[in-house]
Amino acid sequence: MNFASDNWAGAHPAITQALAENAPGFAAAYGLSDLDRKVEERFCEIFEREVAVFFVATGTAANALSMALVNRPGGVVFCHEHAHMVEDEGGAPEYLTGGARTHGVAGARGRIDGPALERAIAQFPAAFVHAGQPMAVSLTQATEIGTVYSLDAIAAIAGICRAHGIPLHMDGARFANALVALETTPAQMTWRSGVDIVSFGATKNGCWCAEAIVVMDPAKARDMPFLRKRAAHLFSKSRFIAAQFEGYFRDDLWLANARHANAMAAQLADILDRAAATRLAWQPQTNEVFALMGEQTAAALRERGIFFHPWAVPRDMTARAGEGLYRFVTSFATTREDLSALAAALG
Amino acid sequence: MNFASDNWAGAHPAITQALAENAPGFAAAYGLSDLDRKVEERFCEIFEREVAVFFVATGTAANALSMALVNRPGGVVFCHEHAHMVEDEGGAPEYLTGGARTHGVAGARGRIDGPALERAIAQFPAAFVHAGQPMAVSLTQATEIGTVYSLDAIAAIAGICRAHGIPLHMDGARFANALVALETTPAQMTWRSGVDIVSFGATKNGCWCAEAIVVMDPAKARDMPFLRKRAAHLFSKSRFIAAQFEGYFRDDLWLANARHANAMAAQLADILDRAAATRLAWQPQTNEVFALMGEQTAAALRERGIFFHPWAVPRDMTARAGEGLYRFVTSFATTREDLSALAAALG
Amino acid sequence: MNFASDNWAGAHPAITQALAENAPGFAAAYGLSDLDRKVEERFCEIFEREVAVFFVATGTAANALSMALVNRPGGVVFCHEHAHMVEDEGGAPEYLTGGARTHGVAGARGRIDGPALERAIAQFPAAFVHAGQPMAVSLTQATEIGTVYSLDAIAAIAGICRAHGIPLHMDGARFANALVALETTPAQMTWRSGVDIVSFGATKNGCWCAEAIVVMDPAKARDMPFLRKRAAHLFSKSRFIAAQFEGYFRDDLWLANARHANAMAAQLADILDRAAATRLAWQPQTNEVFALMGEQTAAALRERGIFFHPWAVPRDMTARAGEGLYRFVTSFATTREDLSALAAALG
Amino acid sequence: MNFASDNWAGAHPAITQALAENAPGFAAAYGLSDLDRKVEERFCEIFEREVAVFFVATGTAANALSMALVNRPGGVVFCHEHAHMVEDEGGAPEYLTGGARTHGVAGARGRIDGPALERAIAQFPAAFVHAGQPMAVSLTQATEIGTVYSLDAIAAIAGICRAHGIPLHMDGARFANALVALETTPAQMTWRSGVDIVSFGATKNGCWCAEAIVVMDPAKARDMPFLRKRAAHLFSKSRFIAAQFEGYFRDDLWLANARHANAMAAQLADILDRAAATRLAWQPQTNEVFALMGEQTAAALRERGIFFHPWAVPRDMTARAGEGLYRFVTSFATTREDLSALAAALG
Repeated sequence: MNFASDNWAGAHPAITQALAENAPGFAAAYGLSDLDRKVEERFCEIFEREVAVFFVATGTAANALSMALVNRPGGVVFCHEHAHMVEDEGGAPEYLTGGARTHGVAGARGRIDGPALERAIAQFPAAFVHAGQPMAVSLTQATEIGTVYSLDAIAAIAGICRAHGIPLHMDGARFANALVALETTPAQMTWRSGVDIVSFGATKNGCWCAEAIVVMDPAKARDMPFLRKRAAHLFSKSRFIAAQFEGYFRDDLWLANARHANAMAAQLADILDRAAATRLAWQPQTNEVFALMGEQTAAALRERGIFFHPWAVPRDMTARAGEGLYRFVTSFATTREDLSALAAALG
Repeated sequence: MNFASDNWAGAHPAITQALAENAPGFAAAYGLSDLDRKVEERFCEIFEREVAVFFVATGTAANALSMALVNRPGGVVFCHEHAHMVEDEGGAPEYLTGGARTHGVAGARGRIDGPALERAIAQFPAAFVHAGQPMAVSLTQATEIGTVYSLDAIAAIAGICRAHGIPLHMDGARFANALVALETTPAQMTWRSGVDIVSFGATKNGCWCAEAIVVMDPAKARDMPFLRKRAAHLFSKSRFIAAQFEGYFRDDLWLANARHANAMAAQLADILDRAAATRLAWQPQTNEVFALMGEQTAAALRERGIFFHPWAVPRDMTARAGEGLYRFVTSFATTREDLSALAAALG
Repeated sequence: MNFASDNWAGAHPAITQALAENAPGFAAAYGLSDLDRKVEERFCEIFEREVAVFFVATGTAANALSMALVNRPGGVVFCHEHAHMVEDEGGAPEYLTGGARTHGVAGARGRIDGPALERAIAQFPAAFVHAGQPMAVSLTQATEIGTVYSLDAIAAIAGICRAHGIPLHMDGARFANALVALETTPAQMTWRSGVDIVSFGATKNGCWCAEAIVVMDPAKARDMPFLRKRAAHLFSKSRFIAAQFEGYFRDDLWLANARHANAMAAQLADILDRAAATRLAWQPQTNEVFALMGEQTAAALRERGIFFHPWAVPRDMTARAGEGLYRFVTSFATTREDLSALAAALG
Repeated sequence: MNFASDNWAGAHPAITQALAENAPGFAAAYGLSDLDRKVEERFCEIFEREVAVFFVATGTAANALSMALVNRPGGVVFCHEHAHMVEDEGGAPEYLTGGARTHGVAGARGRIDGPALERAIAQFPAAFVHAGQPMAVSLTQATEIGTVYSLDAIAAIAGICRAHGIPLHMDGARFANALVALETTPAQMTWRSGVDIVSFGATKNGCWCAEAIVVMDPAKARDMPFLRKRAAHLFSKSRFIAAQFEGYFRDDLWLANARHANAMAAQLADILDRAAATRLAWQPQTNEVFALMGEQTAAALRERGIFFHPWAVPRDMTARAGEGLYRFVTSFATTREDLSALAAALG
């Protein structure tokens, strides 16, 4: 009954199995093994185009190094004001770019608001060195609060990027969850909608450590090997990241895991919506569910061994007196029994 | 018959097993799980003192973040001129410190020469901003060329550090190989000999990805969590690094693996020493063996499927005309059959 | 009739004179001349304590290097949301600290609001690496919009800093203007009110290039010489900065210049307040005056050769339809004739 | 009788005069004044082509920001092993590039040796992330030890740069001294010989603070305004740098000053060559003279008020027992009386 976070879950048995299969034998280090190559090709198939793929240790590394790739001096990247890069990466995007800045943009339900983005970019007029220069927009798909951008919404943000000559990055820490929620393809959700770089996360969806930076135009990725090495993110036994991805994509495990997590979240939302002591903050689209409840209710749930985290109330909603906002996260490891236990605890 | 590098080997079965055992269930992310705690305590036992332990993704990260911890503006770290930090880390120590510099110091057989170190430090007189300021010495144990510093040699370098008020770092990418070669204890080889920080590597010795920064005085490690996060090296599912270390230390697997690799290297050296077509460059003390041979001999070995790398001839030795220097690395995965095949190939 | 900015003014004749007096002869380079020493002692007298003084090229350098001195990994500096460091320094504070972040705090009339500051700091709980760690507060005295913090207001902000164990920096690009507005002493306005570091600006008040970082506790300034050199801000002929300060402090020129600029601003405010076509945005306390007017009025003034800049309307005020906000800056070089011309232009 | 350094001299009267002339009145800040424009055009005339010009505070800033402009991740800049960037800039090139490294190359008489440069570059093979990637070569003209590269020598280095696809930078802290020594033109000594960027120094030759980065192809300078601002090197009253350059170029003052300094050096060399107690280390080509002498001789000269600095004996020469190497620097401010006094002191 642990809804604390999808990164509290362990590794899916198929991932463990893939690691075990690839453990013996010798293979070229530093990303040059046959398995690395094979998995890179798999990414190309999945994205329906030649892409450049770079494995890194963490989602924060994927985001920060993506920004390093598109960095400009005095550069500013525009994100939702509650994006992971803005609030949860301890300054890594700023550090691994060598001093770029994140600029938070408002927007309802965790999504960047188009007009707000335009206004934010307008604060950095061309060649005005005092302010700095726009260098990228980053959107989070699925968002930090369990919602998703529609394909049209992504394309709209991409249109703003094109108008300003800056690339669009997608923080896909929960890429698979968004993908199955939209019932679309990776190609459609990214480059066909105008996305240039993706932080492709697999850790939260059943791997133990598998993140990849996917650059849609390989010609623009020339510097990435050096950026990654400079940040000490080139694994010597890189094949073990590759092995995880091999297991992840085999038999569409990644999609199955994400569908399961999303389905569990939908049921969880239903439970929280029906319960007298809780009310759903907004309808989840992926695997994060947010609910408002009194402190006593929260404490009572915890006493029954149910884990979840409090969350800051966003600007576009209001909590009643005594109420707090809480986040529940599901994953491949969430079971129907977990949900039943929660339902029972809520009476 | 792969002697290319110890990071071309895969993972030891016991490590794979430890990962599998710890795959199920939920645990706190970001290094806060019970298993993380337990392994940290294991490190304290092994080092016979309270130490601060930080898991990171790569040996380069361990080195670079160690330097970040002791960083000073205008700072200079003194290493052997062929140290990994100087030649093989793509600028990561410079980058993750925010601009510190490495300064190569000469020394025979891969070891920093004491008087040369004194002369190098003397080029940076106190408060002379034009040159910069000494910030650390880093020695590599075992060295890049398979030799080790004796305990006395470590203590001598440490004495120079103390005299100049700077800390001593040990790049222990092959810590275990050196340890068993010296038949000493981790405590003796580090803090009892004056070492302040260790990059404790396990990847080359049977793990797939397990590196730790060990700070002997935890009070001096206060900033490390922020430095690590800023560099995007904090794993969410950190427990899987912990799991590898659990397997690594269990039943002294790490010492057994290192002893095996060193023993294989000794036999390999013997083979190369006896063969007519090759001559041993110097006596190995750990798991790296260097030999001189003609290009034709090297090509002939490779044709028989034997992998190994060419190496730059160091200043303190001379190759004969037509001869090149080559490195052979053994590991937990090297077998007697591999050696026999090599011996056979050499006639 | 130029009210564009106090940095559009040239150099005061006494500064030019001081430069000329010190031009001949030889003197030790890099800040080690007798004149450098003498001026540093003058700073100590002015601040009524032993202080450490570092000359730099620009106000942005003074701010950014002050931050570098107090930098922590993952560090966050809290400033007013419209502070120079946040909006006008092109990422220099982030860059010269190696990746620290500025965090804008709201507050009426250009001053940081105490409770808002407390809330902002609370977003960075101790040891929570994901957010980062508070490293300093910086207040701007006089503010970017011509107001000043009272001594009590400074002390209140300092109290919050002390409670959180972080230093207080004062961006004193217009230090003298604030000082004479408060009719206080440098000691009172800084360390006696809890300020730890000051960016002491003289450029806007009659020098051509004279900025100093003043560290109240010299023991904490140990690294500054290296930070300054690393940022390439150590002048070889540093004595020419010293010479400007010598002229600046001689016969209290600096106070006279600031008093003149402030007096001109008060008269200018009076003119704008009385004119039918303009209304004063708020009462100036130093040498910057803000007024609301229609676009046509602004255009008409400019046609008569009167220079001034448009300004963004702050959150805590509302402009009427068709109205814009404009800034008028006075300096030592502003004359009564300039004001008369403005008054005449406004009818 | 001060031969300590050309940056111990003050400002030439014509520079002081130019500053005074431009002190009154208002002008656009941050490099946008008419005077800034005019001086930029003057640079174009002098270099006989459209160039991009950026004023900065120090020679170290000019070098470091030049490197920032051509920076690559993992980047390595090749300089003479005793170049200012390697030994005297306190880590600024590393810092202002965000972690690039300098790589010292040997060479007789202060000049980079071509074959040694080729060997050094060869240590960084294409796409080999472990080593890093070559990003530039920087040569110093005049060198740190008073010699110059001939036009052919510059072209030869430039040829190596072209072959490796990296730009050539010239550290011209003593540009004018080299120019008049070679009796050539700025165009010939730079872009016509293959130089891409110049740190154009004027401070050592009579200004008090006037350095410029000159980029031969303005299209490649797009990022420089942001790099300069990010490093806090954009002067608000930039026109005072421009004013110094106006005075510097007027009536060819710069060439006259350099010719005078070089002529004084030639005479000084003659004195040191003839004196029994000293011997000339090598023939000076510009304004720095190096001599070997016993410690007692050096002390005796100092007692008579003659200032000069000791210098490290380079690899390509040998000092006799008891002898030290010393540097004497002349400038626009050196007089025949100074030389006579030295000659008298030497007997």
